[in-house]
Amino acid sequence: MQQTTLKALADRFGLTLRGDPDHRVGAPATLAAAGPENVSFLANPAYAVHLAECRAGAVIIGEGLAERWSGNALISDNPYASWAKIAAHLSPEPTAEPGTHPAAVVADDASVDPSASIGPQASIGARARIGRNVTVGPGCVIADDAVIGDDSRLVAHVYIGPGCRLGKRVLVHPGVVIGADGFGLAMEAGHWIKVPQLGAVVIGDDCEIGANTTIDRGAIEDTELAEDVRLDNQVQIAHNVRIGAHTAIAGCVGIAGSTHIGRYCMIAGACGIGGHLTICDKVIVTAMSTVLDSITEPGEYGSGIPARPHARWKRILVRLGQLDDWVRRLRRLERNQS
Amino acid sequence: MQQTTLKALADRFGLTLRGDPDHRVGAPATLAAAGPENVSFLANPAYAVHLAECRAGAVIIGEGLAERWSGNALISDNPYASWAKIAAHLSPEPTAEPGTHPAAVVADDASVDPSASIGPQASIGARARIGRNVTVGPGCVIADDAVIGDDSRLVAHVYIGPGCRLGKRVLVHPGVVIGADGFGLAMEAGHWIKVPQLGAVVIGDDCEIGANTTIDRGAIEDTELAEDVRLDNQVQIAHNVRIGAHTAIAGCVGIAGSTHIGRYCMIAGACGIGGHLTICDKVIVTAMSTVLDSITEPGEYGSGIPARPHARWKRILVRLGQLDDWVRRLRRLERNQS
Amino acid sequence: MQQTTLKALADRFGLTLRGDPDHRVGAPATLAAAGPENVSFLANPAYAVHLAECRAGAVIIGEGLAERWSGNALISDNPYASWAKIAAHLSPEPTAEPGTHPAAVVADDASVDPSASIGPQASIGARARIGRNVTVGPGCVIADDAVIGDDSRLVAHVYIGPGCRLGKRVLVHPGVVIGADGFGLAMEAGHWIKVPQLGAVVIGDDCEIGANTTIDRGAIEDTELAEDVRLDNQVQIAHNVRIGAHTAIAGCVGIAGSTHIGRYCMIAGACGIGGHLTICDKVIVTAMSTVLDSITEPGEYGSGIPARPHARWKRILVRLGQLDDWVRRLRRLERNQS
Repeated sequence: MQQTTLKALADRFGLTLRGDPDHRVGAPATLAAAGPENVSFLANPAYAVHLAECRAGAVIIGEGLAERWSGNALISDNPYASWAKIAAHLSPEPTAEPGTHPAAVVADDASVDPSASIGPQASIGARARIGRNVTVGPGCVIADDAVIGDDSRLVAHVYIGPGCRLGKRVLVHPGVVIGADGFGLAMEAGHWIKVPQLGAVVIGDDCEIGANTTIDRGAIEDTELAEDVRLDNQVQIAHNVRIGAHTAIAGCVGIAGSTHIGRYCMIAGACGIGGHLTICDKVIVTAMSTVLDSITEPGEYGSGIPARPHARWKRILVRLGQLDDWVRRLRRLERNQS
Repeated sequence: MQQTTLKALADRFGLTLRGDPDHRVGAPATLAAAGPENVSFLANPAYAVHLAECRAGAVIIGEGLAERWSGNALISDNPYASWAKIAAHLSPEPTAEPGTHPAAVVADDASVDPSASIGPQASIGARARIGRNVTVGPGCVIADDAVIGDDSRLVAHVYIGPGCRLGKRVLVHPGVVIGADGFGLAMEAGHWIKVPQLGAVVIGDDCEIGANTTIDRGAIEDTELAEDVRLDNQVQIAHNVRIGAHTAIAGCVGIAGSTHIGRYCMIAGACGIGGHLTICDKVIVTAMSTVLDSITEPGEYGSGIPARPHARWKRILVRLGQLDDWVRRLRRLERNQS
Repeated sequence: MQQTTLKALADRFGLTLRGDPDHRVGAPATLAAAGPENVSFLANPAYAVHLAECRAGAVIIGEGLAERWSGNALISDNPYASWAKIAAHLSPEPTAEPGTHPAAVVADDASVDPSASIGPQASIGARARIGRNVTVGPGCVIADDAVIGDDSRLVAHVYIGPGCRLGKRVLVHPGVVIGADGFGLAMEAGHWIKVPQLGAVVIGDDCEIGANTTIDRGAIEDTELAEDVRLDNQVQIAHNVRIGAHTAIAGCVGIAGSTHIGRYCMIAGACGIGGHLTICDKVIVTAMSTVLDSITEPGEYGSGIPARPHARWKRILVRLGQLDDWVRRLRRLERNQS
């Protein structure tokens, strides 16, 4: 953990400093837990109540809330982004040792940049190309002809299928499977025939892929994530899906085959998105929703139902089942009244 | 990529050739991308609009649509199945080298057929049996007493639990866990006691299991997939589930314990199926549905709700919560009118 | 498989024996499959119909149902718990050999108790501490500074992130990822900035974590599971979630960030639980429900909708979409009538 002065932080990250420029802070901490040696932040106004008791050495804070805090302040237009950068600065990721661990297996004709770090039990296939400063963590499997762009990091237990290509600065968490076969089946004479999945997966620069997420290779053409796409854990991306730049998808979302998602979309947790749809830019889908039609207008969409006490919910379910009948009775009343 | 004449393809796959028998094609391609050296296909009439601009060397096509295409045609009763077979013929999977990689670990008393390929970082337990032409990819773990049938392929990072048995030609994608313990718990004096999971998992011939799917071992008897069952990615199969032959289950579906699914069922993505149910043959469940009762009649079932603009959906939710009240008011109106 | 007398079982597990004390039983079996050499159990009265034909050497059974069974009986206040203990006694898990497999990689400054078993292809990071009688199965990755408590077992392919700490007797199934980064993003100038995830994951004693489940590290403070928490397969636990003791969570559940779940809760399969919520003790959530509000009263909650035949469900969906309109028409009728 590094220690640095508030002046140094303000200068480096373009913030307005209010308070003691020589005060030194190290570890980031929450408002409630921070002491004089910690820097903290306030991005969500709901947490402003903690300012009263806060003992932080400095708080990264927006101008609007700064007057509610009497201690050292690093004033930012975007406190959460400033926090992200300062926390990364104070708690840098340990850098992996360059070189190939003796317990890794690298194909003779694979190309591994000397600055890359290949961890124990990793396996790199024929003709694969591993860029500069790449980290391939323990137990990762890079199949033949795969390409990993510069400064990318595969944490551990990541699988990259044949011919799949990752851009630069891609971060892939453990258990991710990129480039397994898509789910393509043809029925003939009562048996399924596997449809070969001939495309690959192409991932743009600056993407992050959460733990145990799966992204299938395309059936004929490629499955594609543009730059700066962020996927949480246990997301399932089927074959030939395309996801636009800067779109973020929360945990447990499934996207069926050939659907195209726009740029700057945000899909909340556990949504299911049907196949062969087009979702335009800047669409927000709320949690546990089912998207079965294309969306052509930016905005917020949903179909999740909040849980209620079970007895009440059961009564609603009964009424839901009778809805058609009630509508008929209502129509009859209207006819009688007119 | 192989190159072959249209006559050779027509003869081999029993298709009617219309056009130049000596024309040679190689890589499969989409209708839109294909050039003279590519073979393409048309199975979904919605894509027939692409025929006008299509430059493919040949199109696999049904008789009904063939008149809309003036180029070389391979006419098939089942163009998608013909495509599957021709694409596999033209783009064969690379075959793995027989033998055990020096960085694999195989128990002394395991039985590995000499034609099998055991990849780097794989580990094969005591008394396990690996059949003819099996591929055990990098990082796979085969526990004690497991059996892998002839011509099966475990791509990478697959776990097969103790005593679990896979049939022939089973394809298992990366990250799959077959034979972890089922979720069996008994409460005693305020603490959970683990209920031993003594059964195994038995998988029939010709099954395919998608990436990061989990299939738990049975509590006492086995969890069973019959032949030709096809599971997509991130499917969860609990203990003592049985799935009938030729059933296909899309991504993110969860099936709770002891449920029996029939033959030729199709479960769409992200459905949840409750425990101790029986689903008969030829049931289709639509996406994001919840099955909580047994199903005794073939047909299509569902409970998924398509997303709407959020403001409209919120108003519907309010009405849904008031449903009981509206029904009461409707009844009063009926009483008053009569 | 051990063999033992009914008297020995009754004495050891505090049960009342009715029948032949010297009868010997070995393998546990279901009521339907058991023969004279098997012990079976009846916990769910729905299965009492099997007693008539049952040939088991003994049945573990509650007093209330014992009169419906004429054979040897081990009478218990809690037959399912007694079954769990007797089955574990008769079918003990094989114990792993102490020591580090030559194909494992252990950092020089890691501390591994001599009684621990480190399997092939496992990798143990710097300063990690592995307790007494721990099993680290094949292909597991234990990152730097992680701690695994005594008698814990990581079956295979488990990832434990930097600084994460597991208690004693924790059982972790294959494919689990504990301590990947939480999903923290700040938007700045049209790009996402990653928010460092500085907390760890802390897991209490006696927890069990199902296959391919993911538990993210905290953003600043830790993600925490108290003692005796039981997670099924493919559960997703986001950063800074806290789960109280003795809570059980079924497969495919997702819990969003910073939510606190109480003690003795039971969350059924495939539920989604929103972020920043507090769920009190002893809450039951039924399958496929969406929890979007905090819950302050113990009891049963839900919002899952059981599937219906598709044609009927489609009609209900139409009515659901018109609900606002029907309510308006109902109100008009009321006005006209009054």
